[in-house]
Amino acid sequence: MRIIAHRVATAGPGDVSGLAALLDAGELRADEILAVIGKTEGNGGVNDFTRELATRALGDLLAPRLECAPEAIEERIVLSFSGGTEGVASPHLLILSRRGAALAAPRTSKRLAIATGHTRALEPSEIGYRPMMEETARVVRELMRELAVDDPSDVHLVQIKGAIPGYDETQRVAAEAEGRPLRCDMVGSRAASALGVGIALGEIDDAAAGDDAVCRDWSLFSTRASVSAKPGLPRSEITLFANSAWWDGDLVIEHGVMRDIIDLDAIRDVLARLGLTAPGQLAPEQTARLVGIFAKSDADPRHRIRGRRHTMWTDADISDMRYSRCVVSALLAGVTGETAVYVSTRAEHHGPLGGGPVAMIARVDA
Amino acid sequence: MRIIAHRVATAGPGDVSGLAALLDAGELRADEILAVIGKTEGNGGVNDFTRELATRALGDLLAPRLECAPEAIEERIVLSFSGGTEGVASPHLLILSRRGAALAAPRTSKRLAIATGHTRALEPSEIGYRPMMEETARVVRELMRELAVDDPSDVHLVQIKGAIPGYDETQRVAAEAEGRPLRCDMVGSRAASALGVGIALGEIDDAAAGDDAVCRDWSLFSTRASVSAKPGLPRSEITLFANSAWWDGDLVIEHGVMRDIIDLDAIRDVLARLGLTAPGQLAPEQTARLVGIFAKSDADPRHRIRGRRHTMWTDADISDMRYSRCVVSALLAGVTGETAVYVSTRAEHHGPLGGGPVAMIARVDA
Amino acid sequence: MRIIAHRVATAGPGDVSGLAALLDAGELRADEILAVIGKTEGNGGVNDFTRELATRALGDLLAPRLECAPEAIEERIVLSFSGGTEGVASPHLLILSRRGAALAAPRTSKRLAIATGHTRALEPSEIGYRPMMEETARVVRELMRELAVDDPSDVHLVQIKGAIPGYDETQRVAAEAEGRPLRCDMVGSRAASALGVGIALGEIDDAAAGDDAVCRDWSLFSTRASVSAKPGLPRSEITLFANSAWWDGDLVIEHGVMRDIIDLDAIRDVLARLGLTAPGQLAPEQTARLVGIFAKSDADPRHRIRGRRHTMWTDADISDMRYSRCVVSALLAGVTGETAVYVSTRAEHHGPLGGGPVAMIARVDA
Amino acid sequence: MRIIAHRVATAGPGDVSGLAALLDAGELRADEILAVIGKTEGNGGVNDFTRELATRALGDLLAPRLECAPEAIEERIVLSFSGGTEGVASPHLLILSRRGAALAAPRTSKRLAIATGHTRALEPSEIGYRPMMEETARVVRELMRELAVDDPSDVHLVQIKGAIPGYDETQRVAAEAEGRPLRCDMVGSRAASALGVGIALGEIDDAAAGDDAVCRDWSLFSTRASVSAKPGLPRSEITLFANSAWWDGDLVIEHGVMRDIIDLDAIRDVLARLGLTAPGQLAPEQTARLVGIFAKSDADPRHRIRGRRHTMWTDADISDMRYSRCVVSALLAGVTGETAVYVSTRAEHHGPLGGGPVAMIARVDA
Repeated sequence: MRIIAHRVATAGPGDVSGLAALLDAGELRADEILAVIGKTEGNGGVNDFTRELATRALGDLLAPRLECAPEAIEERIVLSFSGGTEGVASPHLLILSRRGAALAAPRTSKRLAIATGHTRALEPSEIGYRPMMEETARVVRELMRELAVDDPSDVHLVQIKGAIPGYDETQRVAAEAEGRPLRCDMVGSRAASALGVGIALGEIDDAAAGDDAVCRDWSLFSTRASVSAKPGLPRSEITLFANSAWWDGDLVIEHGVMRDIIDLDAIRDVLARLGLTAPGQLAPEQTARLVGIFAKSDADPRHRIRGRRHTMWTDADISDMRYSRCVVSALLAGVTGETAVYVSTRAEHHGPLGGGPVAMIARVDA
Repeated sequence: MRIIAHRVATAGPGDVSGLAALLDAGELRADEILAVIGKTEGNGGVNDFTRELATRALGDLLAPRLECAPEAIEERIVLSFSGGTEGVASPHLLILSRRGAALAAPRTSKRLAIATGHTRALEPSEIGYRPMMEETARVVRELMRELAVDDPSDVHLVQIKGAIPGYDETQRVAAEAEGRPLRCDMVGSRAASALGVGIALGEIDDAAAGDDAVCRDWSLFSTRASVSAKPGLPRSEITLFANSAWWDGDLVIEHGVMRDIIDLDAIRDVLARLGLTAPGQLAPEQTARLVGIFAKSDADPRHRIRGRRHTMWTDADISDMRYSRCVVSALLAGVTGETAVYVSTRAEHHGPLGGGPVAMIARVDA
Repeated sequence: MRIIAHRVATAGPGDVSGLAALLDAGELRADEILAVIGKTEGNGGVNDFTRELATRALGDLLAPRLECAPEAIEERIVLSFSGGTEGVASPHLLILSRRGAALAAPRTSKRLAIATGHTRALEPSEIGYRPMMEETARVVRELMRELAVDDPSDVHLVQIKGAIPGYDETQRVAAEAEGRPLRCDMVGSRAASALGVGIALGEIDDAAAGDDAVCRDWSLFSTRASVSAKPGLPRSEITLFANSAWWDGDLVIEHGVMRDIIDLDAIRDVLARLGLTAPGQLAPEQTARLVGIFAKSDADPRHRIRGRRHTMWTDADISDMRYSRCVVSALLAGVTGETAVYVSTRAEHHGPLGGGPVAMIARVDA
Repeated sequence: MRIIAHRVATAGPGDVSGLAALLDAGELRADEILAVIGKTEGNGGVNDFTRELATRALGDLLAPRLECAPEAIEERIVLSFSGGTEGVASPHLLILSRRGAALAAPRTSKRLAIATGHTRALEPSEIGYRPMMEETARVVRELMRELAVDDPSDVHLVQIKGAIPGYDETQRVAAEAEGRPLRCDMVGSRAASALGVGIALGEIDDAAAGDDAVCRDWSLFSTRASVSAKPGLPRSEITLFANSAWWDGDLVIEHGVMRDIIDLDAIRDVLARLGLTAPGQLAPEQTARLVGIFAKSDADPRHRIRGRRHTMWTDADISDMRYSRCVVSALLAGVTGETAVYVSTRAEHHGPLGGGPVAMIARVDA
């Protein structure tokens, strides 16, 4: 059993010709695909319809081959699109597939393993609170078991589409009356999910991560969570990336954490753990080994980086999110030589305040 | 005779309190100031009034101390403000002053020397054509002589505010009739000025840089020009930065050229020439030696970087200029650890297409 | 034979539930639909993918009912989406259908009639020049005959998707060498198409509309053209709206022209011709009679309106197109009480410089 | 005693040449100026420095003539700049001056009267709460007395720069502990100020306007308040515009309230009260009588106008504030024929939710 990865450039959010060509050429079968992770050239805001367009285009492409309705495609494959290719970031799709049979015995060196799952349906009152943390942690542990990963340090990325169930005014008022106002929004969903990942992976002390810590105690964070939240989603979808001795193939994954948005060395450290060292930018043959580059970050809400003022939050014309994606994409591209990077914003409890996790998948040296 | 440099952070485009404090404390005299180079937090476009605000604030501060009218301040001091502190770039002023007497004999190691001058008043028909190149080249050579710099390789930055004299419809029509349509705009002024610098410094073959080469033959470029153009300016203002054996002090300058917008190694090369080497980001004590960081760049108009598509030119909401400044500022900050960087856009014949020059001033190691 | 019109609000660019409900309820048959004209909430620029999303959603909805491939839908139905619902403009679809048999004899009062057609495939060298004008005029006349419209004053709207065939560098260079540089872009396509409409409708003197007049002689314009241009489109698609005695139903159309972007009276004049007069805003029962509201406009490129400066062209953060759509939508909504308006920008030779055509479809008074 | 008004167009935020010319020509004396109200072409957000530039330019112009320091100018003259000339709105300054001696007896017809004052310094804990309402109401009543205005219906505009005193973390925590969390921000300052105006003018029942009503009970509103709030301002500055029998001159003021952002008839009603009626847009000689046009508005936060969806709040690229200013400016210009309009956004308790007050100053018919 092994993960195979294909990265295709896109000419627009609705362009799935690259994947179609792979399928048509027989390099890949639709039923092998586990996940498609893509950057689309939208604004990443509420009116970014490029994600919907990409989802629809993939549904139209894959549904006939999977013999399901286009709308049902997301029950079969994790589709994770992040809008916003600011600066040098290049629109692309990363297609992750699973092929082959289970190993009879563990390998000596570990290889990339991926499992997907989801939480139970969550109540609006649970989002942003302990129940969401706990349920997220439970699923993370379950997926680790599924991949035969015992050591949490072998988990390097937990990509989550966080639940935001719908609710009505009655629920909102009742929650407020109980002194537990709803946190059933993007912030609450991202924050509690990230804390849940941190708890499962032993990064966060379970006892410390109480309801009061959410969006308050920024010392609590995961270095491996990558959560975006989706209004209307009843349950969180979780994709766990780890290295496992029970998985084969030529891919490995590593991660690190940027302590602030210009923490270039954190990127270099991840590369070093992948065996990719260079005094400056990677050499082209090293760049070619990189398959997936992921980061999550934010413009520091304290308006300072290394003691100096930044203006990302005070620009009424351009969102801080577009700036921080642009900055982190530039750094990743500068160090790796690769512009097909996946940087997503809003990173509550993802790394320290103003920083964020980085993960990379690479081919092992032949 | 030596250059002293002060860098002050600003709380807004009209904030000159940092410079006022230096003057009040006697650390600096107004009549020592040669140039003030600053980044202001505007959009960098035609409606960026932060530069006007900064200029006015400086005029109000310095005029009484120089006993001139606020409007006359720019005849005494070069004021060069670039709007746009996208991403991590931090608004700041760099105040460059000259102090002390001429050396009796040359030093063994060279030090930063700065001279300012201006072209003669240029005709509208000359902008963007050979006469502007030649006149620019003439002044560059003159300023080199003034600094006792014989070797063009000792010149590392030629900051220019390019002339764009006003003209009327008659002149426009006449020029068109002559088959030499006016190029009297920002593009023409920047392009011909940069070519003029390249000619003076021997980077560009004088014979190759004909009128037809302007904005056509991108193989011709200077690696040391940094030109912005200003509508209404009758003559170009030129500030030359070099290392000279006849200048004292503890500052040196070096330059390099990014071949594309993610050329991290070009930045590291400049640092290396300043004696600042590090495997990744500079150590804090190295960062502290950096006094001025300058770059000029553009989003590649071919819509590609290293063969991959970028979307900086096709985003109808955000200007490519804001993106490219954000990207280059991020790289400079990532490598140096310093966010007070001066990145300016539109770089015709400044470095190769899609790339651009980088220059840095540093204190020598004590 | 009569035109029936349905207007449905959309919850997003991919929302076709309103049309689906009409089809499911049997109020409309897919094969009756002539055209779907919609405003989508994009930015209206090159990276506005809301139009593609809407087109795809409609294709997915209608293709099974028309037993064709989703991609073939545009050969059967005119899909005309304009991105940008700035200000009060409300995203919506207007579905125009044809039903019933030809009348045996003309009516005494005329009714809305619609015909669609297309030019022959146009060469890149023809775009923006006389051949495009002539071919556009030819098709307009042909469609008039098809609708039994003799009098050009019965034509009130000619909606065109203008051709922009692809071309290669050789063609570009050859055209330049011939002294007829390619105008094969959006500007050329819109301008020549509008001039063609004006010629066919007798608004423009055929002899005056030479190649030199394109984007030069702004006194030449159509008050009924509404052209957007689409890169890659080999032939222009033309939809003609007229009142005809040979058509039945309860809809009529009228038009007018705004002489500048605040020409409120031009809007009131169109309403008056539809029998909708009111001292200020229409009364709700009058508003209810309005079915379709169309306008085309631009921010005056001379930077003035009624002698006063406007800043729509000098704002580096927001496109003049978004501003002018916002302004004209606000005026239309203010006068009519209806926010489901279709305003599209870039209006070369559509009405006078800085103004533009307005057309409205209304139900006749019962 | 009478008010004289001068309106001058500006070529940029720092352009005070129009006022300078008036002063130089002796048409106006600096010490007659009561207030300068202007629209500047910024973005109207926190990083809109055009207001600071305009303030500085006016200070530099007027200080020598008033023999005070430029910084002290605002103690002598009300300077009220609103950033944002979206769409057709034209940048301009309206200079309001007072001239002549008090009347010996009242006139039969009333004329424009203006008085300026300020609240006492307000505590952070008072902003957004009853004390701010009460103190605002007190000053409004005081200014009415000063103008000899007995009938609140003679007051047509109360322009306020609302206080937002600085506070520290201790104060914030203490307030929260007391169950009265600080509302010391723009929202609280605008809301309580508007409620205070409404109380003073009898528009709002004093008993109903409790602390709980702030930003909750939108049925409470003033139709004459126009408040912007300024961080760091310790006391609110209030300028009251009324018609008074004890004032002379040829100017009168009237007001009305838009019930939503497309309420064109509300604008026509104000004009009618000024004796300016027209079936559509005012005739040029009517337009010429208009001296000042003021409005305050907001994009409806319920995302609907007349039952239809608008997208002003869901556009991640352009602020709802820019849209609503653009819309209301377009309507005002369309009805009046005048683009020098002053529209300002954020209108908590200024007219009904989604609507806002309109006031106009006109010359009486000669």
